[in-house]
Amino acid sequence: MRHQYHPLGFDGSRIAQGFWRLQEWNMTSSETLGFIEACLDLGVTTLDHADIYGGYQCEALFGEALKHKPALRDKMEIVTKCGILLPSESRPEIRVHRYDYRAEHILASVDRSLANLQCEYIDTLLLHRPSPLMDADEIAQAFDLLFTLGKVKHFGVSNFTTHQFDLLQSRLDAPLIVNQVELSPLALQHFEDGTLDHLQQHAVTPMAWSPFAGGELFSGSNEKAKRVQMVLGELAQQNNCTVDQIVVAWLLRHPSGICPVMGSGKVERLAMAVDALSIPLSDDDWFRIWVASKGQPVP
Amino acid sequence: MRHQYHPLGFDGSRIAQGFWRLQEWNMTSSETLGFIEACLDLGVTTLDHADIYGGYQCEALFGEALKHKPALRDKMEIVTKCGILLPSESRPEIRVHRYDYRAEHILASVDRSLANLQCEYIDTLLLHRPSPLMDADEIAQAFDLLFTLGKVKHFGVSNFTTHQFDLLQSRLDAPLIVNQVELSPLALQHFEDGTLDHLQQHAVTPMAWSPFAGGELFSGSNEKAKRVQMVLGELAQQNNCTVDQIVVAWLLRHPSGICPVMGSGKVERLAMAVDALSIPLSDDDWFRIWVASKGQPVP
Amino acid sequence: MRHQYHPLGFDGSRIAQGFWRLQEWNMTSSETLGFIEACLDLGVTTLDHADIYGGYQCEALFGEALKHKPALRDKMEIVTKCGILLPSESRPEIRVHRYDYRAEHILASVDRSLANLQCEYIDTLLLHRPSPLMDADEIAQAFDLLFTLGKVKHFGVSNFTTHQFDLLQSRLDAPLIVNQVELSPLALQHFEDGTLDHLQQHAVTPMAWSPFAGGELFSGSNEKAKRVQMVLGELAQQNNCTVDQIVVAWLLRHPSGICPVMGSGKVERLAMAVDALSIPLSDDDWFRIWVASKGQPVP
Repeated sequence: MRHQYHPLGFDGSRIAQGFWRLQEWNMTSSETLGFIEACLDLGVTTLDHADIYGGYQCEALFGEALKHKPALRDKMEIVTKCGILLPSESRPEIRVHRYDYRAEHILASVDRSLANLQCEYIDTLLLHRPSPLMDADEIAQAFDLLFTLGKVKHFGVSNFTTHQFDLLQSRLDAPLIVNQVELSPLALQHFEDGTLDHLQQHAVTPMAWSPFAGGELFSGSNEKAKRVQMVLGELAQQNNCTVDQIVVAWLLRHPSGICPVMGSGKVERLAMAVDALSIPLSDDDWFRIWVASKGQPVP
Repeated sequence: MRHQYHPLGFDGSRIAQGFWRLQEWNMTSSETLGFIEACLDLGVTTLDHADIYGGYQCEALFGEALKHKPALRDKMEIVTKCGILLPSESRPEIRVHRYDYRAEHILASVDRSLANLQCEYIDTLLLHRPSPLMDADEIAQAFDLLFTLGKVKHFGVSNFTTHQFDLLQSRLDAPLIVNQVELSPLALQHFEDGTLDHLQQHAVTPMAWSPFAGGELFSGSNEKAKRVQMVLGELAQQNNCTVDQIVVAWLLRHPSGICPVMGSGKVERLAMAVDALSIPLSDDDWFRIWVASKGQPVP
Repeated sequence: MRHQYHPLGFDGSRIAQGFWRLQEWNMTSSETLGFIEACLDLGVTTLDHADIYGGYQCEALFGEALKHKPALRDKMEIVTKCGILLPSESRPEIRVHRYDYRAEHILASVDRSLANLQCEYIDTLLLHRPSPLMDADEIAQAFDLLFTLGKVKHFGVSNFTTHQFDLLQSRLDAPLIVNQVELSPLALQHFEDGTLDHLQQHAVTPMAWSPFAGGELFSGSNEKAKRVQMVLGELAQQNNCTVDQIVVAWLLRHPSGICPVMGSGKVERLAMAVDALSIPLSDDDWFRIWVASKGQPVP
């Protein structure tokens, strides 16, 4: 269940739990605390956030829970993100939905995240989306300062192409340790566009967002989704497990070391994902899912 | 207004003036000389040519003007290009519109350009378009010879992909200092396909050809052009400036250090572009233009 | 006619002969031997196989012929491939058409190829198609073992993207010496997507499969095929040669050093291809074919 996200560092859990819907879960502070403890008990210690989740509210809800038991902090790894500006009630000064990677913004965003999370450091900070206005040198300066101040231990990116990754990495002394991208049996593009090849080459961990394709793997009604659902259903039955578990096992099988980010607020769902670590998905079955998604045999 | 095109050399102007329409301007030789002097007075010292402009005539028209005041030569940087064969009245031996990067052709093309421009050296020679038949080793030999003979000081390319750039660079001792590509609010492809990321990584300057999208930014009638025109118009009004200036400011804001190549023969137009260097385009406004061109919000 | 496939090794022939249709040729063992000898007499010493050709039968048919004259072995270079699993009568244990690059499979596949070919070594082993499940580290271990055991002298790939190539190469001490991809006047994609640029950069030889586009260059009826056929026909007439020869000359002209793999079982066809080495296709004519395929002038 432990996973070395990069040869030079960041020891996290193979399955991560995301908190982007924390607000929707309508948990009390103590229910949130209970959920966090349940995650840790399952070995899911890598917890995924972003400043903007829940209209900039989720980090604070998490922090309010955590302050009741601060000793938990060192038993988890907190991933959070910065760089998207999202107009919302709580941030009236933001007028345009855009990106901001000026050093000033990155530093201020981290300070807000730390305050909201009620933590003294972030384990891994990700740039949430590539921006056409990214200045890699300026970002590198911000990263250096955050590291020196002890506010962030590791850095990564999300939704970056190989060229964007190379550009930013070229300005950094420490390696980027994560690229969090969309990966699921219904989202094969990064399996084929070089993203996973490039990460595997550089021993950088892909984290998978939307591993269930936003629910399309359960309820999508287009032809592609239905083809994949049929195969997933058969395999779940054969393996006496759930569709969730087949999908997680499918992601875990990839040699690049994909770490899926789970999104449900139900502990049972997370427990099932964890159990998928021991499901022996054969390569035949792996390709059956691939072929169902592509809609044609491999060449 | 000065711009270091590469850390290892070529000190030019941030705004360049192109002469591909010089023939259409119908200037007398002394009018051309006056135009050149006006460019230099504005600080626009990087002057962009190609052997083929004006059906192989523009370089010679420029040279005829320059010979009246040869002392101007060392106050400007001449960029010219080679590699396209274009059937035209003045070059009857060319039968097929194609590319030629044989060493023999590169060397002969530079000699013709020097004769036409009435100069002893070219500041920067660009390969005009990538050719499927480019032999990088042969090109490297031609570059070496041109540099040794003092005929060309720096080398660059135009319209090259990242792979083509890497191939050629791998055979050269000196860095390519420019990739001149199409960049404008209506031509976003190179902002997204890795071209600008790769240039920023290697500290190579992108020059922007067709920064006004061949006039589409003023008069284009498709949906995309109209969306962008509306935003540009609003911003020009708010900033009490011209649409030209908003577009130039938009290009200048990019962290890769884009140098736009202006194409008008009117000094006023060029003067306005130069003034755009001091227009404070906000990032909000930068993204408004981006989103108008994309036709959808950023992800 | 000799061709150095990589600066560090593999001396083969510029024209290769493929045996993927050997079974369809319905040759007796001694006819096959005669065909092999005719290839060698023509200087075509690089002979291309794959485990799966002919439903896993072709290698054995070749081996049966070769055993009648084992001294021929050292006069040829055998290329073969592994990694595709293809359900077929002779391999009932294969249930899903997929790829397999587990070390165990690679090693077993080579042993089967050696047994079938009745040889003690393979000159060059290619991974037949990239797989989403390729583990570059595991493949590297298999390659090391095969090299140490003397079973395979060189390694290469087929149908790999630049990212897939870089990933695998990053784990190997020795260079990959070949990427065998589809290249023909009707298949220009790899001339433009960076594949050939990248191979030229790293001095790796492209082998061209389907150089006649599976016959479409002779009999294809779509607009693109007809445009190319017309130009090829004119050029064949002008050069007093065959369309085959024009196509081979067109491939040979590319600076990346393309080695076409011929597929006919008729010695005359192969002899014609060899003669194409001396056909002086002009660059004008090269681009006429390119433009006919693209359907528009070069930019």
